[in-house]
Amino acid sequence: MEPLSIIPLLGIPEVREGDDLGELIARAAWTAGTPLHDGDCLVVTQKVVSKAEGRIVPLDHGDPGAKRALVEAESVRILRRRGDLVISETTHGFVCANAGIDLSNVEDGTAALLPVDADRSARRIRDALRGVEKVDVGVIVSDTFGRAWRHGLTDVAIGVAGIAAVLDLRGTADARGRALQVTEVAVADEIAAAAELVMGKSSGVAVAIVRGLDPAWFREASVRELVRRPQDDLFR
Amino acid sequence: MEPLSIIPLLGIPEVREGDDLGELIARAAWTAGTPLHDGDCLVVTQKVVSKAEGRIVPLDHGDPGAKRALVEAESVRILRRRGDLVISETTHGFVCANAGIDLSNVEDGTAALLPVDADRSARRIRDALRGVEKVDVGVIVSDTFGRAWRHGLTDVAIGVAGIAAVLDLRGTADARGRALQVTEVAVADEIAAAAELVMGKSSGVAVAIVRGLDPAWFREASVRELVRRPQDDLFR
Repeated sequence: MEPLSIIPLLGIPEVREGDDLGELIARAAWTAGTPLHDGDCLVVTQKVVSKAEGRIVPLDHGDPGAKRALVEAESVRILRRRGDLVISETTHGFVCANAGIDLSNVEDGTAALLPVDADRSARRIRDALRGVEKVDVGVIVSDTFGRAWRHGLTDVAIGVAGIAAVLDLRGTADARGRALQVTEVAVADEIAAAAELVMGKSSGVAVAIVRGLDPAWFREASVRELVRRPQDDLFR
Repeated sequence: MEPLSIIPLLGIPEVREGDDLGELIARAAWTAGTPLHDGDCLVVTQKVVSKAEGRIVPLDHGDPGAKRALVEAESVRILRRRGDLVISETTHGFVCANAGIDLSNVEDGTAALLPVDADRSARRIRDALRGVEKVDVGVIVSDTFGRAWRHGLTDVAIGVAGIAAVLDLRGTADARGRALQVTEVAVADEIAAAAELVMGKSSGVAVAIVRGLDPAWFREASVRELVRRPQDDLFR
């Protein structure tokens, strides 16, 4: 297999509601001297997607009641509370802290909500790049979530377009010709995690180019592949 | 920031008990024309570590009772059962399916247990490479675990040496100078996930070189940074 490259894309300007992210990304990639290739996968953080889509709402950061009401409005089910922390299931089916509402890197007195449909957000970027740049890329919208059982946060996929979310290896053999035990690999989450390594939480890099992924992984897909239904979940 | 490269290391021979993994890795890297550099991070899959350390035990794959007894012997607490699947807390504090016991890519009639102390396994590889190759690298031992709430599996760290497991960003400011909301990043899990992208479940690539990580992340560390204590866990 070839090496994989993960390239932070610098030079995306401050994003505002209505901005065309595909166009901003294409321009930044040209300016940086790393034009996009067919078969690249872009990872775009939720923050800039939410800004472009106008998912910024007023919120007094010092008012716990207002924050709680906003988290509840974005949730279909509260799983746990501890102090200020709420773990809930969002309207999308994601389980995360505070319904994915983000208070960092936004204007004072505001909060960023998750995109309404981040598969659609990813598809819009993918389609823009196909139209403007004639380049065929996968797109993943990523966000930073905690996990049960393990400390620390990792980036995961909250929307995908043109790239598998889960790779189904059922029917594949191991190196000894026996059926594989590990059969479903969350590649979109692994790609999002890999991209986070070049983004940094304080440097404000919002987009990474992942180059060299297996071409077989590029297909129509949805983040719903990654969402475990509550009735199938042993921990809800 | 510079691009990150993730290089699959081909040419590791079939590993046997007592093999010196550091030496096998150094030789494969030279043969492949990708000698190791200071500041590289190696990701080594649990399977070859368990083989080198003799953590292969006899197990009749067709005998569910024998498998169940082995899982229980490797666990300190059973969290959930569904059919054949057991989610348990291992003696190391990891929560995973079947106590991390692996039936793929092993000899018929055997199973691979997790290393007793994969921090020590990682340190042994790191020390061997310092001694033989005079090269200073981080080492992560990885395994493939499922998650609550999300479908599909991802690779995570089960042992680390010379590289942070969790990056503590408390006290760091966001791009607007305010305290970051996301403060603890599970970088070792993200590096393990990134490496999995070039390994493939059926191709038998057991080691990847991750090149270009932030030098500030290289320090003494333990996978215990990633293990959430049961009393701090909202889902146990």
